[in-house]
Amino acid sequence: MSILAFPSPSLQIDGALLVKQLHELGEIGADPEVGGRTRIALTDDERAGRDLVVKWMRELDLDVGFDRIGNIFGTLRSDSDDGSRRPLMMGSHIDTVKNAGALDGCYGVLAGLAVVRAFRAAGTKPARSITVAAFTNEEGIRYQPDMMGSLVYAGGLSVEEALDTVGIDGTRLGDELSRIGYAGELEPGAIVPHEYLELHIEQGPILEAENIRIGVVESLKGISWQRITVQGNANHAGTTPTRLRHDAGWVAAAVQTFLRELAVSAGTTLATIGMLHIEPNVINVIPRKAVFTVDLRDPDELRLQDAEHRLAAFLVEVAEKEGVKISTERLVRFEPVVFNAQLADAIEASAEKMGFTHRRMTSGAGHDAQMIARIAPAAMIFVPSRGGVSHNPREHTDDGQLVDGANVLLDVVLKRLAA
Amino acid sequence: MSILAFPSPSLQIDGALLVKQLHELGEIGADPEVGGRTRIALTDDERAGRDLVVKWMRELDLDVGFDRIGNIFGTLRSDSDDGSRRPLMMGSHIDTVKNAGALDGCYGVLAGLAVVRAFRAAGTKPARSITVAAFTNEEGIRYQPDMMGSLVYAGGLSVEEALDTVGIDGTRLGDELSRIGYAGELEPGAIVPHEYLELHIEQGPILEAENIRIGVVESLKGISWQRITVQGNANHAGTTPTRLRHDAGWVAAAVQTFLRELAVSAGTTLATIGMLHIEPNVINVIPRKAVFTVDLRDPDELRLQDAEHRLAAFLVEVAEKEGVKISTERLVRFEPVVFNAQLADAIEASAEKMGFTHRRMTSGAGHDAQMIARIAPAAMIFVPSRGGVSHNPREHTDDGQLVDGANVLLDVVLKRLAA
Repeated sequence: MSILAFPSPSLQIDGALLVKQLHELGEIGADPEVGGRTRIALTDDERAGRDLVVKWMRELDLDVGFDRIGNIFGTLRSDSDDGSRRPLMMGSHIDTVKNAGALDGCYGVLAGLAVVRAFRAAGTKPARSITVAAFTNEEGIRYQPDMMGSLVYAGGLSVEEALDTVGIDGTRLGDELSRIGYAGELEPGAIVPHEYLELHIEQGPILEAENIRIGVVESLKGISWQRITVQGNANHAGTTPTRLRHDAGWVAAAVQTFLRELAVSAGTTLATIGMLHIEPNVINVIPRKAVFTVDLRDPDELRLQDAEHRLAAFLVEVAEKEGVKISTERLVRFEPVVFNAQLADAIEASAEKMGFTHRRMTSGAGHDAQMIARIAPAAMIFVPSRGGVSHNPREHTDDGQLVDGANVLLDVVLKRLAA
Repeated sequence: MSILAFPSPSLQIDGALLVKQLHELGEIGADPEVGGRTRIALTDDERAGRDLVVKWMRELDLDVGFDRIGNIFGTLRSDSDDGSRRPLMMGSHIDTVKNAGALDGCYGVLAGLAVVRAFRAAGTKPARSITVAAFTNEEGIRYQPDMMGSLVYAGGLSVEEALDTVGIDGTRLGDELSRIGYAGELEPGAIVPHEYLELHIEQGPILEAENIRIGVVESLKGISWQRITVQGNANHAGTTPTRLRHDAGWVAAAVQTFLRELAVSAGTTLATIGMLHIEPNVINVIPRKAVFTVDLRDPDELRLQDAEHRLAAFLVEVAEKEGVKISTERLVRFEPVVFNAQLADAIEASAEKMGFTHRRMTSGAGHDAQMIARIAPAAMIFVPSRGGVSHNPREHTDDGQLVDGANVLLDVVLKRLAA
């Protein structure tokens, strides 16, 4: 068995097996009625997904470990691994939103396994240990903030605080993690990567629209999440004159239309109200309360701050106008991230060498890579998403594009191992 | 025992008992946390309310009967009642919205019992039988349409169709009615009233604002209820450019702000979105679906139609603009109602005689009286609502105002019996 020190034409991605595993993992939590699958972090379905990934890691004879926040690590040891050299890491997540596609996150984890499998198939060991990571709760659907596992891993949130997080279903994260059997012993961050690569579907329309095969992700948008609560006054819909209303539902709508205008005029800012509840939610009662979330993103920190300030000013104005109380709670705030230039260059060079069209780009979605970028050089590789659709059962990337992306990942890994 | 043929100074409302019974009925379904009480039609709590009212009817030795849609009738027979003369009817409802006040509906039913009690206390029988009615499902929270019991009673909806109504909780109305033991034998409409009077809190701010004691309700606004479903496209909040979004939540908000502008510009039209759900309702996913209700009211049928037409045109426009599908379903449509002029005159004369300030007015809320108006002369009496607040735990009318209203009701009843 040789120690590989430079790119070897003998290492190959088993594309068919990668696609097969994506389908197999995608069956877990599948909803035959609405379509897609729902594997929200630390649910029974997500445990089943974890079990399958761990099974595949063990089949590749990796050293498998879990840390205290439930991040899963599968390591292919180099022969020279005496614990003093940091591993090259590839990773992403396997938790999903509701009725998700099969690729978001899972692709990065299973492509990492495909890279390791290429070493196993060639009977070759890497010059530096390679770790494949599946980070806990990237989506943040049930427990906030999102990207929690990688955030804790990178030291941005204490593990105790993370374990004490109470979810939207009233459960405590630490209890659910123990319940599904993934509360590990490793301290988060015990394994610090030498470098980190994350392969992901774009989840946006740019690569497809420009007919480009590989996205070299050199930066990531800043994210601002808030929860806004409007306290108005319930009253009879048939008797209360418009001027005397304190309609919390209307205020939520006014914020929504304001944000759309803000996004259109700002150009680069994206604004979304994804979650909204009104009370008492009765046909002939003016809503007394509205609770909703605002998701703002911008690749530029100053523009993101500007959007936040404009929203705050509008809230003051509309509260005064309608005679309601508005409170805001910050849920998540991440500044834009610039990835490691050397890694981005390496990705670009691999795509170029392999004959794939490519472009530099910014990610609009949050990714575990932005957390790992705090403690190690990191970058991402994107493949096209059909119609830009994600977080949706219709999320799709052609099998050939998925395999191409994994081959670029393998090529970059081989290059970095040789560096 | 004399047969009373004209107003008698010996008949008196027992105001303290009326107020006590309002409190006692108001305790059923009380929510100590949010305040108010929730006695939604045909739930266990509403059954307990029915049981209490029936107990009180039996204590007054009334003939108690239920019809097939669950309307409750308690009749004080005149000595001359051979079944050929129609009774004078007073009534309203005892079902509530969520976290309701104690007066909406209950006041009319219990004031009716207070009028009957005045006869009992005086040892006097009326010249014409008097029936107190509590109609099923006036609020329409769980089963639509609202005012269902009186609608069926007045022949506007077949009893079979009403019993087959499926509620928002998936239950069948007829099953729930049987379950709580109020599926009676009487055919709805077997008892046709000679005349119908309904005493109610205003549920609006006009009487209080003008410092007027008694509202003589001579008409009732038309009501248009629709359910609107917007089918957009779920997508990632961080990567989907604004121009490529098909955001069902934004469309709901745009409709909401359009309706506010419509209401402000039309002047007499009221427009409310009381119920709204978005899917998947996840913080970082553009909503693929929004379902909401629109409640439009106007005292003028042509203006109500105009509002419906303008809304329909806006839905076409916004669907085109955002690239979504919008479907609408009509839930309830009632034209404005003009009450019986003779009864309104009688109410006005009683208020005047008793020295109460009074005014003619239009009701914005739907009431059982509008259904009964299809089959018998009907009119309503209003008392002030503090702050115009209703459908809210803070719904309030002073005890003195409640007793005054009941005294006006008694006076009108005595006058009509003598007519």
